[in-house]
Amino acid sequence: MSPDDGGFPTDYEIAQSVQTEHIADVVEPFGLARDDLELHGEEKAKVKLDAIERITEESDADSDLVLVTGMTPTPLGEGKTVTTVGLGQAFNRIGQDALIAIREPSLGPVFGVKGGAAGGGYSQVLPMEDINLHFTGDLHALTSAHNLISTMLDNHIKQHNELDIAVNWVNWPRAIDMNDRVLREIVIGLGGDVTGVPREDGFILTAASELMAVLCLADSIQDLKERIGRIIVAYDRDGDVVTVDDIDATGAVTILLKDALKPNVVQTIEGTPAFVHGGPFANIAHGTNSLIADDVASSLADVLVTEAGFGSDLGAEKFMNIVCRFGDMEPDAVTLVASVRALKYHGYDMWPPDVDELESENVEALERGFENLDRHVSNLRKFGVEVVVAINRFPEDSDEEVQTVIDHCEDELGVAAAESNVFSDGGEGGVELAEKLTDAIEADSDFAPLYDVDASIKEKIETVATEIYGAEGVEYHGSAEDDIERLTDLDFDDVPVCMSKTFHSFSDDASKKGAPEGWTLEVTEVYPSAGAGFLVVLTGDVLTLPGLPEEPAAAGMDIDADENISGLF
Amino acid sequence: MSPDDGGFPTDYEIAQSVQTEHIADVVEPFGLARDDLELHGEEKAKVKLDAIERITEESDADSDLVLVTGMTPTPLGEGKTVTTVGLGQAFNRIGQDALIAIREPSLGPVFGVKGGAAGGGYSQVLPMEDINLHFTGDLHALTSAHNLISTMLDNHIKQHNELDIAVNWVNWPRAIDMNDRVLREIVIGLGGDVTGVPREDGFILTAASELMAVLCLADSIQDLKERIGRIIVAYDRDGDVVTVDDIDATGAVTILLKDALKPNVVQTIEGTPAFVHGGPFANIAHGTNSLIADDVASSLADVLVTEAGFGSDLGAEKFMNIVCRFGDMEPDAVTLVASVRALKYHGYDMWPPDVDELESENVEALERGFENLDRHVSNLRKFGVEVVVAINRFPEDSDEEVQTVIDHCEDELGVAAAESNVFSDGGEGGVELAEKLTDAIEADSDFAPLYDVDASIKEKIETVATEIYGAEGVEYHGSAEDDIERLTDLDFDDVPVCMSKTFHSFSDDASKKGAPEGWTLEVTEVYPSAGAGFLVVLTGDVLTLPGLPEEPAAAGMDIDADENISGLF
Repeated sequence: MSPDDGGFPTDYEIAQSVQTEHIADVVEPFGLARDDLELHGEEKAKVKLDAIERITEESDADSDLVLVTGMTPTPLGEGKTVTTVGLGQAFNRIGQDALIAIREPSLGPVFGVKGGAAGGGYSQVLPMEDINLHFTGDLHALTSAHNLISTMLDNHIKQHNELDIAVNWVNWPRAIDMNDRVLREIVIGLGGDVTGVPREDGFILTAASELMAVLCLADSIQDLKERIGRIIVAYDRDGDVVTVDDIDATGAVTILLKDALKPNVVQTIEGTPAFVHGGPFANIAHGTNSLIADDVASSLADVLVTEAGFGSDLGAEKFMNIVCRFGDMEPDAVTLVASVRALKYHGYDMWPPDVDELESENVEALERGFENLDRHVSNLRKFGVEVVVAINRFPEDSDEEVQTVIDHCEDELGVAAAESNVFSDGGEGGVELAEKLTDAIEADSDFAPLYDVDASIKEKIETVATEIYGAEGVEYHGSAEDDIERLTDLDFDDVPVCMSKTFHSFSDDASKKGAPEGWTLEVTEVYPSAGAGFLVVLTGDVLTLPGLPEEPAAAGMDIDADENISGLF
Repeated sequence: MSPDDGGFPTDYEIAQSVQTEHIADVVEPFGLARDDLELHGEEKAKVKLDAIERITEESDADSDLVLVTGMTPTPLGEGKTVTTVGLGQAFNRIGQDALIAIREPSLGPVFGVKGGAAGGGYSQVLPMEDINLHFTGDLHALTSAHNLISTMLDNHIKQHNELDIAVNWVNWPRAIDMNDRVLREIVIGLGGDVTGVPREDGFILTAASELMAVLCLADSIQDLKERIGRIIVAYDRDGDVVTVDDIDATGAVTILLKDALKPNVVQTIEGTPAFVHGGPFANIAHGTNSLIADDVASSLADVLVTEAGFGSDLGAEKFMNIVCRFGDMEPDAVTLVASVRALKYHGYDMWPPDVDELESENVEALERGFENLDRHVSNLRKFGVEVVVAINRFPEDSDEEVQTVIDHCEDELGVAAAESNVFSDGGEGGVELAEKLTDAIEADSDFAPLYDVDASIKEKIETVATEIYGAEGVEYHGSAEDDIERLTDLDFDDVPVCMSKTFHSFSDDASKKGAPEGWTLEVTEVYPSAGAGFLVVLTGDVLTLPGLPEEPAAAGMDIDADENISGLF
């Protein structure tokens, strides 16, 4: 408890109160030896690639995979990561050897809005300040690798441009892990001949780089190198693709990423090992942690709990249609994180959110919000997986509200539901959820992706739009029709589609809450992520470089002479 | 030996042939316990700050300080770092507990020209590929910290600009650790109101950031924080300074640098501990490794061997006039690295260098080059220190050439000189040099900086210009006169001057070899590095963001499935 206010301790206070074990001791019971690790201090380690090769080859384990997803997010956060971490702890409490795999946070957003991305309360991963800052340097390696491609590209253009690259058709922006909005649109190469050729450019957040997606899908150095080489960075004046291979950057970029490919392992507050590795956008990319972490974790555990970004219409859809396909995996059960306040938010059709309203009891508003929950449940069932709703309980929720949700799930939807108190109670607060998920795992499931990769590009887009988003149809604007035609001609049509849509709504209009009907999805552009192996389908503007708010969290941060940090969480 | 060509093995082959010890075992005999270290794998560690506090407080050691500097550099490299590393090894061979402190390389330049910055041959620090790539993340932390200041600044301007910052008077560019010349001059903030206020901007190399200078001068977290807070990032419309404190970024920036402040320790190929920490430009900054590394190393060793950047007119001058003053240190002896080919290069007045000519015997050209060597020796003696000339031997040098240099030093200059073969023979090749330096250390010395900090700004500039560079006087152009007047009015005149001059010549004209006479130094601008605590004096253009050459080294790099790297060295 906080000594000052007698209230619930902060995440940082909880983290500081825990005596962590050496990470080598934490992972040893799961079959990772000290020699399998590259230590980063005593609490963080990377798993060596030869150890991964050995473990995945030796393993005949068919571990159970539990995916954590959520209803349409509110700006307040529903607690998907905290549920993932707590659930991993809970499975261990009921006698299952469970591991956790989650994304690693970006540094940039840390300085914008207060609050870390490593769980919270008694369900967080440690050392939380490291994980939210430099961690093991993966994001920095990605930033450098991304910008090395940019540098090699502009240097090629400056030197003789033998590839005849069209300077207005460069598809590789620069990257930074900082919420620095003034870099979104810039002009580079000013200052005369000696600095090269001026052109329009812009920066994206490192997490939005295709390199991040590639890192999260590669299963070895060789695979990583091949994927990097295929990335399309520009077109020449004939309209032919220019790849990373073409500008001779593949080897050097792979060298920069060789350590970033190794999954990071840390521990939760209760000593459950957690892989925290990779963090691609769930918007222009697939939004889940690395496949290599999933691979090694599922070879070591009875149960692997992992998480997909944003709501189930984005993260889970991509997990099922893209990640499971590429990784040859299937989820044995899915838990959909809901909260009383998120249901009320959708019930009020509230925009922006009014926190006081959301924290006051209102069963009627809550019930109006069920339409959002219901569509998520119904969508997930289309993949043939068992769903358990997790109600992540906040202190302000009334018992009646929570019971209303449980009754709705069980009686109206016919799905299991459990209150989750992992934030306040750690693994113990997730035991009921873990037990219901165990039942779900044991039930027969019949998983399948929603579309065939060999379907036409439009067919795949339309399947997601109508089956998942609830659109009546799809309209193509801007370059979309031409893009689809060109990509089909290039034989780049037999891959999954990675839909880029606002996460604030099932629809492509961020202001529409609940479960919007009677609308049409508007596709504006389709482009290949050839290294990742999917087509990105843009619907409306995508913000790939956020900005800082008027009162950035950074302004309230401090560190004392003894390295105690304040204001970070 | 290289199995392929029978010739001298490459740096990488030599590095791979060595079985390193665990870094904790390497430093233990010097008094660093395992608990004093934060391990980064088995070969790299950071020293904890509380250990440094304990060690420097407990120590009554007055270790001997040997500075390694050089004559005016040639594009071929004279081997200053290799001499520093080899000399540390040599001192250990003659029974002295010697430690080494050198700068850590920037990542950016690695992709431009082949060749690492961690010594070479049998006098290199390991693990050389790590040290030249991400190492322990210090450069990445600096890049992030630097750009957080930029982001906070532009966000302040966008939100309400309450400080009334003049957008055309921002003195804080952005930073990147990549030789990406198209970012030298850019326009940011395009795209309308939502992205902020458009303005001209540019990127510098991270090593050129004032944060790097600050990190290398701070002796604690508290000192680091205070220095960061004082950094001047812009001026308001009244011409008053705007600092990092003013934009509320001090705490967050310090948090990002808390680990980077901890010195890195690794080992040489012969197992001598080497601190590799900090790498400020020797041009707009002071160009030596961190003071905190010097502090801890000199508390642990009998002899500390350290290195200053570029020729003695830049690096050594700043070491004596700035670093020793700030760090309350004095060099007990200086070794000036010369080479036969550098002497011939100056003797030919060659520009650009002709390698074939330089590798052919020519005693006459060599002798003409002595004027460069002589001025360096004479300059160093003005600080009251003993000088030993180290002739870094290359395979092509003839015995007569080497002997001619030794005779010249001993007979004409009256300084000791020794041939150094540390590249080919490791520490054994530096024993004679170490012995002569031991004599120099034992001789009486009478060290003093060359000017008083209380002298006027112009007096300090003119002292360096005439006494060190050999100029006849100084002319002030551009804003220089106004700058000096304003800085004097602001009481910012009682600090050392950090001269920014080309390193290719004693003069401000890069093409003038030897020891130019009859010229006048042209000062164009003077600005404060308030966090570092000196004034930067610009003479001509300073390149703070290099570019890649036509055939970048990156294009020849590769990595195989077993993580073996090629083309990096």
